[in-house]
Amino acid sequence: MIVTTEVSKLTAAAAAAAPVFDRNGRGWRARLLRGIADELEARREDIVALAERETSLGTARLVGEHTRTVYQARLFADVLDEGSYLEAAIDHAGDTPMGPGPDLRRQLVPIGPVAVFGASNFPLAFSVPGGDTVSALAAGCPVIVKAHPSHPETSRLTFDVMRKAARGLDAPEGLLGIVFGQDAGAALVADPRVKAVGFTGSLTGGRALLDIVGAREDPIPFYGELASLNPIVVTAAAARQRGRQIAEGLVASITASAGQLCTKPGLVFVPSGSDGDALVAHSADLVGRTDAGMALNERIHSAYGEIGGRLSRLDGVSLVAEGSLPAEAALRIHPRLLSIAAGELTADATEECFGPLTIIARYGNDAELRAALDRLPASLTGTIHAEPAEEDHIVELSELLRVNVGRVLFDGFPTGVLVSWAQTHGGPWPSTNSQHTSVGTSVIRRFLRPVTWQNAPQFVLPPELRDGDVDIPRRVDGRMQLPG
Amino acid sequence: MIVTTEVSKLTAAAAAAAPVFDRNGRGWRARLLRGIADELEARREDIVALAERETSLGTARLVGEHTRTVYQARLFADVLDEGSYLEAAIDHAGDTPMGPGPDLRRQLVPIGPVAVFGASNFPLAFSVPGGDTVSALAAGCPVIVKAHPSHPETSRLTFDVMRKAARGLDAPEGLLGIVFGQDAGAALVADPRVKAVGFTGSLTGGRALLDIVGAREDPIPFYGELASLNPIVVTAAAARQRGRQIAEGLVASITASAGQLCTKPGLVFVPSGSDGDALVAHSADLVGRTDAGMALNERIHSAYGEIGGRLSRLDGVSLVAEGSLPAEAALRIHPRLLSIAAGELTADATEECFGPLTIIARYGNDAELRAALDRLPASLTGTIHAEPAEEDHIVELSELLRVNVGRVLFDGFPTGVLVSWAQTHGGPWPSTNSQHTSVGTSVIRRFLRPVTWQNAPQFVLPPELRDGDVDIPRRVDGRMQLPG
Repeated sequence: MIVTTEVSKLTAAAAAAAPVFDRNGRGWRARLLRGIADELEARREDIVALAERETSLGTARLVGEHTRTVYQARLFADVLDEGSYLEAAIDHAGDTPMGPGPDLRRQLVPIGPVAVFGASNFPLAFSVPGGDTVSALAAGCPVIVKAHPSHPETSRLTFDVMRKAARGLDAPEGLLGIVFGQDAGAALVADPRVKAVGFTGSLTGGRALLDIVGAREDPIPFYGELASLNPIVVTAAAARQRGRQIAEGLVASITASAGQLCTKPGLVFVPSGSDGDALVAHSADLVGRTDAGMALNERIHSAYGEIGGRLSRLDGVSLVAEGSLPAEAALRIHPRLLSIAAGELTADATEECFGPLTIIARYGNDAELRAALDRLPASLTGTIHAEPAEEDHIVELSELLRVNVGRVLFDGFPTGVLVSWAQTHGGPWPSTNSQHTSVGTSVIRRFLRPVTWQNAPQFVLPPELRDGDVDIPRRVDGRMQLPG
Repeated sequence: MIVTTEVSKLTAAAAAAAPVFDRNGRGWRARLLRGIADELEARREDIVALAERETSLGTARLVGEHTRTVYQARLFADVLDEGSYLEAAIDHAGDTPMGPGPDLRRQLVPIGPVAVFGASNFPLAFSVPGGDTVSALAAGCPVIVKAHPSHPETSRLTFDVMRKAARGLDAPEGLLGIVFGQDAGAALVADPRVKAVGFTGSLTGGRALLDIVGAREDPIPFYGELASLNPIVVTAAAARQRGRQIAEGLVASITASAGQLCTKPGLVFVPSGSDGDALVAHSADLVGRTDAGMALNERIHSAYGEIGGRLSRLDGVSLVAEGSLPAEAALRIHPRLLSIAAGELTADATEECFGPLTIIARYGNDAELRAALDRLPASLTGTIHAEPAEEDHIVELSELLRVNVGRVLFDGFPTGVLVSWAQTHGGPWPSTNSQHTSVGTSVIRRFLRPVTWQNAPQFVLPPELRDGDVDIPRRVDGRMQLPG
């Protein structure tokens, strides 16, 4: 009850801020994002130190994540400057086969206040000052963040840093809000003033919020990025040519951040036979020599034990290797490599296990591989390790993976998602909104909706839709035009 | 059970056709759409005659709708030729603040088989050969249409015409499917091979399908366009200057197609005082002289009577005028003009009444108008009739309406939605997916999802993402480039 009142106050302030924020325009919002980036940079040491205290991610990773977070905020300022994200279009009045047509001008507008749920595994880049927040701000939407309980102080500090930047530009006070706790998060998603939700987390958590969305009088877009298996396929030729090298990249990718990345490869198809055996043996050796990492919280720790146990007890699954687990094992999760025959890969074996666990699926021939790929759930990524000469095979595998993923990689590993213009971090369900990405510049599209003005006087139109030269690409009578 | 088996067969064929269709490429799909347009044109007389027999829409309207349907199919061929709908983007490998970045190439790909639900009120333009179908085909998605029971023969004929065009190009047989009946429609939405749904119809029907989507193991995008009030605001100055002219346009817009258009103005704000009185009196006179039209089906007929009765019995609502209702009144719906004080406009009074009924809301001053606009549900359109000198007032009203609609019109009427590049036919809920439009070229975005290829060899990439010159606009390292 108290929670609902508190949330209501924040959403009312956000709704009041929305039109002011929108009117401030692209230039102002670009300044806001650069101001946020500058403030985050100025407080780097404090932020990283606090995140280090609250998480087990370590300095190097957190410094890298901080760099990425600052870069991301500045990149969205560039997106605003460039302006094609508005999808501005003008159709002049004129004759059509259906009779005279009106003057129509279309542009994307902010969707309204957005709720952003911070993630446990990225206390910066996918939390309070992360991609969902800065893209929603770039779009012109006030943001209320639900802080992740694994790093409340980091959330508070980064929120204060962002608010300082906003106040420095006389932003409306309701532009940024923060709430703590599960009840407040649920109230936020149910609140009629919230117009979209960005969420990175578990399938269970996402489904629960999606149910709240569905029960609203006006269901709203829910952008959840919930689970991913990230299959890798190694061809026989690749196993033969560079099995050792693949094993090294693979184990590094599995154990980075103790496997607590949504792009961790959870399933690797390795050919049967001696080359595949050698690749597996080398991977096993590396895993066996890798120490246990730290789970980000108790929930992840216990789920890792539980799901890992379930997977290892499945028919046909055997343990290939595991890292050492120290005696004082509080929150420790140790890397594990399991193995199964590709033909025995049931739906039970494709459950995501968040943490440093991977299943090796051994396949005897390409038909078996194809059949197994065909049965996989959708993932964020799919990866192929092949030799250049295998053109037809690569094309076939690529198409098989592509229908089920948002990113297809070649001869690399899926962890490490660059924030850039051409990035996609999404895919079919369990990404809840398959039309979109949650990393890269086009994430901004999630928080925008189109509006058309018909026969509007010039003074009513947003500046980007008025007659004359503008500083953005736009479509005029069906043809794209670049500025100046 | 039999229904499910039949639907399964169609969706399996659609899933099998999907990769073939995708590989055929943009050029082939443009030929397909132009072929469909040619076939539809060649069979114009038969199609219009059949639609005339099955519906009450009349020759002129059906000929116009046929023209629009043919035009629409050709326009999507143009969209394919132009190619910017792909949102192609290339980020070359290079250094970033986070270290070396890979080569990333992004493009939209077809989402998979799409279920399209035909609408009763547009037997062509929003039914089997309508906008949802041709945009999904343009996107590269096989389509299974659920025919509307109000015009099964027209559905069958137009389906056969489309299939003939597809066979003429040796299209895979599963590219087009059709089902009849509510059970088949429900089975279609539940089918795991269907990846998106386009629906135009009632709020009740849409909610029922949305519940099926929510119960799927993998919820999919549901694009429903469900109900709309389409408010019009007449300022005091406009009522004074051209009240008669507004009344004439208004009554024409209310009674066109017997009010069975989703953009029919259902609520008109008219100032109190003598100018407003004159506008209402003239509208009443015109409505009184308008004969009853024909409901498209019994469901609409009875709902019109029921909702119209409910609205007229509301506190504060009075009947201003109604058209004549002939004695042999089977399926007849007669135009009705109701009136209420804007201050008394409750949520009950803003229920959509599909048919030629409109409520006039009289307002005493701008504060009263603003308060009433603030309480309205979202609509597809919002319209302002004002005088050019009222700049500030127009801007204010425009912003009040804009937050709640997909299209803002000035000095016109919302019925008649041009199919063009800059059109928007959507808005916040009860449009189920507020990021999109269901009329205009950008509807194609609903049936696409992004994929990124990372470090892919050239031969794996779609032609539009390969190195060298291409015939479409694309973004390279963050900058838009036009072809040639």
